[in-house]
Amino acid sequence: MKRTTYSGLVDETFIGQTVTLKGWVQKRRDLGNLIFIDLRDREGIVQLVFSQEFDSEALKVAEELRNEFVIEIEGQVTARDAKAINPRMKTGKVEVEVHNTIILNKAKTPPFEIQDDINVADDTRLKYRYLDLRRPEMQKSLMIRSRITQSVHSYLDDQKFVDIETPYLTKSTPEGARDYLVPSRVYPGHFYALPQSPQLFKQLLMNAGFDRYYQIARCFRDEDLRGDRQPEFTQIDLETSFMSAEEIQDLTEGLLKRVMKDTLDIDLELPLQRMTWNESMARYGSEKPDIRFDMELKDMAEAVKDIDFKVFTNTLENGGLVNAIAIPGGADKYSRKAIDAKTAYIERFGAKGLAWVKVTEEGFSGPIAKFLNDHVDVIKEAAGANVGDLILFVADKASVVRASLGYLRNDIAKEMDMIDESRFAFLWVVDWPLFEYSEDFDKYIAAHHPFTMPNAEDVHLLDENPHEAHAQSYDIILNGYELGGGSIRIHKRDIQEKMFKALGFTKESAEEQFGFFLDALDYGFPPHGGLAIGLDRFAMLLAKKDNIREVIAFPKNSKASEPLTNAPSSVATKQLDELSLKINEQDMK
Amino acid sequence: MKRTTYSGLVDETFIGQTVTLKGWVQKRRDLGNLIFIDLRDREGIVQLVFSQEFDSEALKVAEELRNEFVIEIEGQVTARDAKAINPRMKTGKVEVEVHNTIILNKAKTPPFEIQDDINVADDTRLKYRYLDLRRPEMQKSLMIRSRITQSVHSYLDDQKFVDIETPYLTKSTPEGARDYLVPSRVYPGHFYALPQSPQLFKQLLMNAGFDRYYQIARCFRDEDLRGDRQPEFTQIDLETSFMSAEEIQDLTEGLLKRVMKDTLDIDLELPLQRMTWNESMARYGSEKPDIRFDMELKDMAEAVKDIDFKVFTNTLENGGLVNAIAIPGGADKYSRKAIDAKTAYIERFGAKGLAWVKVTEEGFSGPIAKFLNDHVDVIKEAAGANVGDLILFVADKASVVRASLGYLRNDIAKEMDMIDESRFAFLWVVDWPLFEYSEDFDKYIAAHHPFTMPNAEDVHLLDENPHEAHAQSYDIILNGYELGGGSIRIHKRDIQEKMFKALGFTKESAEEQFGFFLDALDYGFPPHGGLAIGLDRFAMLLAKKDNIREVIAFPKNSKASEPLTNAPSSVATKQLDELSLKINEQDMK
Repeated sequence: MKRTTYSGLVDETFIGQTVTLKGWVQKRRDLGNLIFIDLRDREGIVQLVFSQEFDSEALKVAEELRNEFVIEIEGQVTARDAKAINPRMKTGKVEVEVHNTIILNKAKTPPFEIQDDINVADDTRLKYRYLDLRRPEMQKSLMIRSRITQSVHSYLDDQKFVDIETPYLTKSTPEGARDYLVPSRVYPGHFYALPQSPQLFKQLLMNAGFDRYYQIARCFRDEDLRGDRQPEFTQIDLETSFMSAEEIQDLTEGLLKRVMKDTLDIDLELPLQRMTWNESMARYGSEKPDIRFDMELKDMAEAVKDIDFKVFTNTLENGGLVNAIAIPGGADKYSRKAIDAKTAYIERFGAKGLAWVKVTEEGFSGPIAKFLNDHVDVIKEAAGANVGDLILFVADKASVVRASLGYLRNDIAKEMDMIDESRFAFLWVVDWPLFEYSEDFDKYIAAHHPFTMPNAEDVHLLDENPHEAHAQSYDIILNGYELGGGSIRIHKRDIQEKMFKALGFTKESAEEQFGFFLDALDYGFPPHGGLAIGLDRFAMLLAKKDNIREVIAFPKNSKASEPLTNAPSSVATKQLDELSLKINEQDMK
Repeated sequence: MKRTTYSGLVDETFIGQTVTLKGWVQKRRDLGNLIFIDLRDREGIVQLVFSQEFDSEALKVAEELRNEFVIEIEGQVTARDAKAINPRMKTGKVEVEVHNTIILNKAKTPPFEIQDDINVADDTRLKYRYLDLRRPEMQKSLMIRSRITQSVHSYLDDQKFVDIETPYLTKSTPEGARDYLVPSRVYPGHFYALPQSPQLFKQLLMNAGFDRYYQIARCFRDEDLRGDRQPEFTQIDLETSFMSAEEIQDLTEGLLKRVMKDTLDIDLELPLQRMTWNESMARYGSEKPDIRFDMELKDMAEAVKDIDFKVFTNTLENGGLVNAIAIPGGADKYSRKAIDAKTAYIERFGAKGLAWVKVTEEGFSGPIAKFLNDHVDVIKEAAGANVGDLILFVADKASVVRASLGYLRNDIAKEMDMIDESRFAFLWVVDWPLFEYSEDFDKYIAAHHPFTMPNAEDVHLLDENPHEAHAQSYDIILNGYELGGGSIRIHKRDIQEKMFKALGFTKESAEEQFGFFLDALDYGFPPHGGLAIGLDRFAMLLAKKDNIREVIAFPKNSKASEPLTNAPSSVATKQLDELSLKINEQDMK
């Protein structure tokens, strides 16, 4: 029989109708001559009633049913007794009197219950992912993700973007993260690489004149795994020709507005706030500020420059910064011990200490209060502090001050419950530095990537002082997460060559790795720019999860393996022989 | 300045308006004080006019312009003189008088012209793919492909399908084609595999209760390359729970109708024709018949069983077939020599000969006419032949007869121009055998894949005589190409185990390779089925191309390499060391 509707949609408008439903047994209550079954499908749950009165055969079948059996039923929708009504369920006013039941498949007892609040090891959830995904919150999360992609397709189609697939088997360009390699059988000793992003291909599509490209593209990075990283991830990838950075941001805002509406029925107000990277760093100590709360970093230089506290004055004299944040109501909340723990924590950012005072009716209290008490009003005003607040100071070079206070700002906002979790706060951070210093590589690397166009007035810096240049680049931030980023790209060969040089390439190494792309710049490459949004993270934030694994159907675990299929696995010698490969057995110990 | 419209869209409705256009110089005609430029963008070409009269600065810039320069212009749209009108162009009634021009980028002379009819080596086209893709026919082909995917997203969203991504780094299951492997760095000596299709994952998503899944999914097969194969290809992949084969076919027909309308504005009439595999083989000698023309295979057994021609009668006595096709007007068209060439060709299908007669007013002519001339009317009628036709006979076992005549039918239809190239002839071929004999492997393999459900009445054959079973499977054929295929899948563990056994798996080998999937069948796996459509092939057919490379932005060449980036390439020793791999140097010779 053909299903007439989903279980989860059977509400009072169905009363009196005969329905055919198919789904899973969520729960069974056996009262002897009356059996209640909660029948579950992707849309929700409806209550079935089996009774001698309705059908004795069906009642007999119902006696056999156990959790997670798959059944098909036919029955009549009736109103529940007033006292049996469950107002929290869409189907809570009705039940279905079953006349006919077929068991479509049986089920062993699952290793965990199919319900939202389970306490199960991550790897168990992943090993039985097909059961984990039956849980309503996982269903909902993946449906939100699907709504996002549908919304993206629809909006970008309206905007005349062309959906173009770029290769997944491509060339290894070991800049940035590590590539996943794919050995070639046809060319022994040669490898394809899985793309870290479609960057060069999408730029080439602009050179090919497609004008507006997009793709929901899988990307691959063989990085050491952290909290929310996956070996493969997905980005909403777009590129346009002949548009300015601001025009691309406007277009992206339209996309975000559509997605928020389609996905969560939220009306996003446009335009979004745009802030330079310099301002973001100064005000929030972060290039991805969470603007759902204030507690901004305050420059205390003017307020403290004349006081007799060497930690501050020496720092200022050496060109450093003294910044503070004022924690509303923090004076009572934070003990000396709690503050000491914060101080220890921010050592990882290079901070040598955390100065603090509590603001009382009488002035400041705390270890350094005596140095500041002659300047209470000035300092309170500069820090934006009121009586009852805790003021935290860091004095150091700018990068240390911002990393430390930027971290504390987020950390304390969570502890103090200052964040309105219902909000979705978007923000553009624009005008990034072109380069950033990498501790890992001990050199300057591209802040975004080597194809980012410097600001027009900074192009000359590429010759003289490249690391001071800022770029026509922009990140879109959501609730303190980097949701995506983009830039205007370089479309002139001479600028691209200077960029490679500034990144430490020789003429030869640039040619070897990117020669095909440099050549492409010779043939009428149009001005162009674009953006990529991390789909996994976007879905995670809209689904209000704290790990992208919760919005990926079959993710890898934190060790890059897949407990369901046991990938990666060993393979047959024949497979390796065909690829002209041998395993270095020493590493297998 | 912001572009106001695309060049290719400037028609007579723009007359009098000032437009800003950005694009490429397609052609330049310099008449001294008057310069004409054809400006090209993705929507087409418009004629620009530069003159002292309009702007002398712009005229000066125009003197510098060469083909493929990228420019921005501002100008006024005017009507062309009546005699200058080009009725074949959308923009042929207008031209743009240019007041202002900027050169956005220069271009070297391209290695081939940016126009449709070029005669250039395939690898040159691929090396400069960004130029090749500027050609209008490539633009159009990729836009058709994009229209298809947009249409698929929109239709399946309407039908409540959930777009879910499945992993690209997964487990190697070396059944069927060869896997591409991806070495793991974290687990030395272990490998992921790139998926040949999302088959098992999409079935698991049905087990997870998503009810309707789809994905436009990249698939990877390391096969020996032939005409229209690529190492990576794309399929429109869908799966549903609780639906019958016919319901899935109906739903797919809705999808095809939408795509044909959105892409080519063609109204596809539904329902499509459905034909069993047995009938398709008997009538067309093919499981993917081109039904744009008739010339069907005719069973000649009744007509020839009593004649005195041993080739026919012995074949029939030994249980073989005698089939014929009648080629309308073929008597004059085909010489004895031409027929001999066909005879030689079909030896590859195992045919030992090709008997033939020409139908004249007086009866049959040709080498075997004397054996048949007493039965002219009966044979003519059985073969469906008329005077002037050529009748070709093959007498052999069924597989040889069908392969030979099935091939000849297509071959001759092309030669005789019998195919209406404007038609799109869809057809379902249903009820396939569950297994097929593979010459390559010298054993029975799954005709579709090991997860295909036998017909209900054939399930018992799995124990007794599995290779006679037919399956709940269906292929969708378009113009003689297999566009896609699908089936109802096995959702019961006992049937799946029998299937593996029939395919030659031991209990242990099935467990090792597919144990996780067998386990999943224990937990309330719903009845389900689905389908996959080859997107590359679909786009190729709708764009009227004869190779899928023409509808892939950056395809591999016929040797699985990519002349643009030179993938695959050698990699650094450090990369291999990290993967615990060594190259077998012997193979590098």
